[in-house]
Amino acid sequence: MKLTAVIMAGGKGERFWPKSRVSYPKQFLSLTSDGETMIQKTVKRLENLVEKQDIYIITNQEYLHLVEKQLPDLPKENIIAEPCPRNTAPCIALAGAIIQKKYQDAIMLVLPSDHLIHAEEIYINTLKKAVKFASEGENLITLGIMPTYPETGYGYIKYLRGSSQDGVYGVECFVEKPDLETAKKYLRSREYLWNSGMFIWKASSILNNIKKYMPDLYTGLQPIVNAYATENFEKILNQNFSNLPAESIDFGIMEKAENIYTIPSSFGWDDVGNWLALERVNATDSNGNLFDGDVISVDTRNCTVSADNKNNKTIALLGLHDLVIVDTPDALLICDKKSTQDIKKVLAEIRKQEKFDLL
Amino acid sequence: MKLTAVIMAGGKGERFWPKSRVSYPKQFLSLTSDGETMIQKTVKRLENLVEKQDIYIITNQEYLHLVEKQLPDLPKENIIAEPCPRNTAPCIALAGAIIQKKYQDAIMLVLPSDHLIHAEEIYINTLKKAVKFASEGENLITLGIMPTYPETGYGYIKYLRGSSQDGVYGVECFVEKPDLETAKKYLRSREYLWNSGMFIWKASSILNNIKKYMPDLYTGLQPIVNAYATENFEKILNQNFSNLPAESIDFGIMEKAENIYTIPSSFGWDDVGNWLALERVNATDSNGNLFDGDVISVDTRNCTVSADNKNNKTIALLGLHDLVIVDTPDALLICDKKSTQDIKKVLAEIRKQEKFDLL
Repeated sequence: MKLTAVIMAGGKGERFWPKSRVSYPKQFLSLTSDGETMIQKTVKRLENLVEKQDIYIITNQEYLHLVEKQLPDLPKENIIAEPCPRNTAPCIALAGAIIQKKYQDAIMLVLPSDHLIHAEEIYINTLKKAVKFASEGENLITLGIMPTYPETGYGYIKYLRGSSQDGVYGVECFVEKPDLETAKKYLRSREYLWNSGMFIWKASSILNNIKKYMPDLYTGLQPIVNAYATENFEKILNQNFSNLPAESIDFGIMEKAENIYTIPSSFGWDDVGNWLALERVNATDSNGNLFDGDVISVDTRNCTVSADNKNNKTIALLGLHDLVIVDTPDALLICDKKSTQDIKKVLAEIRKQEKFDLL
Repeated sequence: MKLTAVIMAGGKGERFWPKSRVSYPKQFLSLTSDGETMIQKTVKRLENLVEKQDIYIITNQEYLHLVEKQLPDLPKENIIAEPCPRNTAPCIALAGAIIQKKYQDAIMLVLPSDHLIHAEEIYINTLKKAVKFASEGENLITLGIMPTYPETGYGYIKYLRGSSQDGVYGVECFVEKPDLETAKKYLRSREYLWNSGMFIWKASSILNNIKKYMPDLYTGLQPIVNAYATENFEKILNQNFSNLPAESIDFGIMEKAENIYTIPSSFGWDDVGNWLALERVNATDSNGNLFDGDVISVDTRNCTVSADNKNNKTIALLGLHDLVIVDTPDALLICDKKSTQDIKKVLAEIRKQEKFDLL
């Protein structure tokens, strides 16, 4: 069966402000020293698994030019630009319907565009295992990450440890982001996985479930799918997409459907969720510092600096520890590492002050 | 007797880097919210005491244009530009000799250009008392500041508490910057004052002492003084000044001469010695923050920001405390308040990296 990939690239990525902006979110940033952007890495990772012409990007109209610029080798018709954000269910349903129209049926790898994976060979082997299992029935597979610490920022998957079918397990339930005590309990129990947001299924499998559990979405989708690959597509998409129900695929389908499976995985996944992630995915110096930019540092440890080269500015750090410093042409962020999750408070203040150019 | 003021404005002021630079030191900065620079305040403070044509500025050639720009009302011939730094003794001796040549004799108020004074009326009354005492003999008077805490960054004056002549006291000795324990002892003893570097004497008094205790300086000075107010002055000054002994007036004269007196003073003196001083001399907000610039602050307290408006940049602070942040077009300093005395380490590193433009 044909293998396709659907890469979701419509996210706003506020947590990397001020480097990420509403007009330039995280998936289009390079956060590693090799200079590749997150979405470029996501596509490159699939190069020996999925043909370029079978990779689809679902993004927002505002980011269409960024996708086309960063991924010039992908067919233009494979890049779908949503006129407005509608969460993941409409995005995935539309991609599934387009794939079904084009190939009759096909396996879909549904992947976020802004995560990092260190052990790519294990990742590819895991996907292959999922593809095989997905092709054997109406199975909906989500990759679960074996937790390594009690993270409170992720949703968890409780899986049925005795149910292995060649490494694929049944899912008991999905649970929301836990508090620290609960996260510790999850970690100790070994029954919980991090919900990575990566899915593998046949287009027909997910569409059958959408028809059953989200009938409004299924119906609303039809005029858009009918117009795909015609000259009216953009017009019809713009007229209809905003009417689709804004819902996540997790809540809309995964928490309700039968045949939900997971593969407990360990391939060095990192969702690069905020500035703290940089010191996980890049090498720090002997003082624990990670400097990108022209930095002079004295008596300073465990600090992360990301400075725009265009600023042509020297940043001097004196007597500091555990800060994140991000310099861009119009905004400078200085943040205690303990507060990186609170960048939304800064953005709220920016909105309150009506400094919309900074968003 | 004619009353003159000699304002010393040749200092480098490295401790306010990166706002102060070798080419733009502290005395030419505005560090208070009223926008006046330190040297402008120093001159203005004297406006009801000393005639404009009797105020002299001794600066470095590099800063001549800054003095002329910031103090356009002073006579040009009252601004003496040293070709190289030679510490305070040559500076004061040259000023004294020029004043003696011009007025036969006169009282000199010798004042730093980069200190702040809060209680100006008390300051002026203190100066008047010193002027009266100086005119009555060959007395050398230094203003001593009543210490309010055990500062380790200042030299101290030990004075003879039983020797008051209408509030003017004899000096037992000058002592170097103490360690904290010694400073505490000084504070408790009530026998020590901070050495403010402000002096009052007749030109003849200081020159007689220079002739006695620093004969090389006295002799070396003569060709320069002879050329003053002639077309050859600049040439002769440049040829001879660098040969004068580089010595402080404290070490060269005050620690050796007879007739040394002090007036214990309390007029809200602040030497504004480093970035920490800003929160003493400006009002902080209810979180203890002092922001000059476009700042968005969340969960942040006791931080000082000084940002160049030309940068047109928003600075967002998140979860911080007790930092000093100074943004300029080519250099950004982020410094823990505990480390403000260590800015010289940053400058050393800049020199090591040969980034001389940043000095």
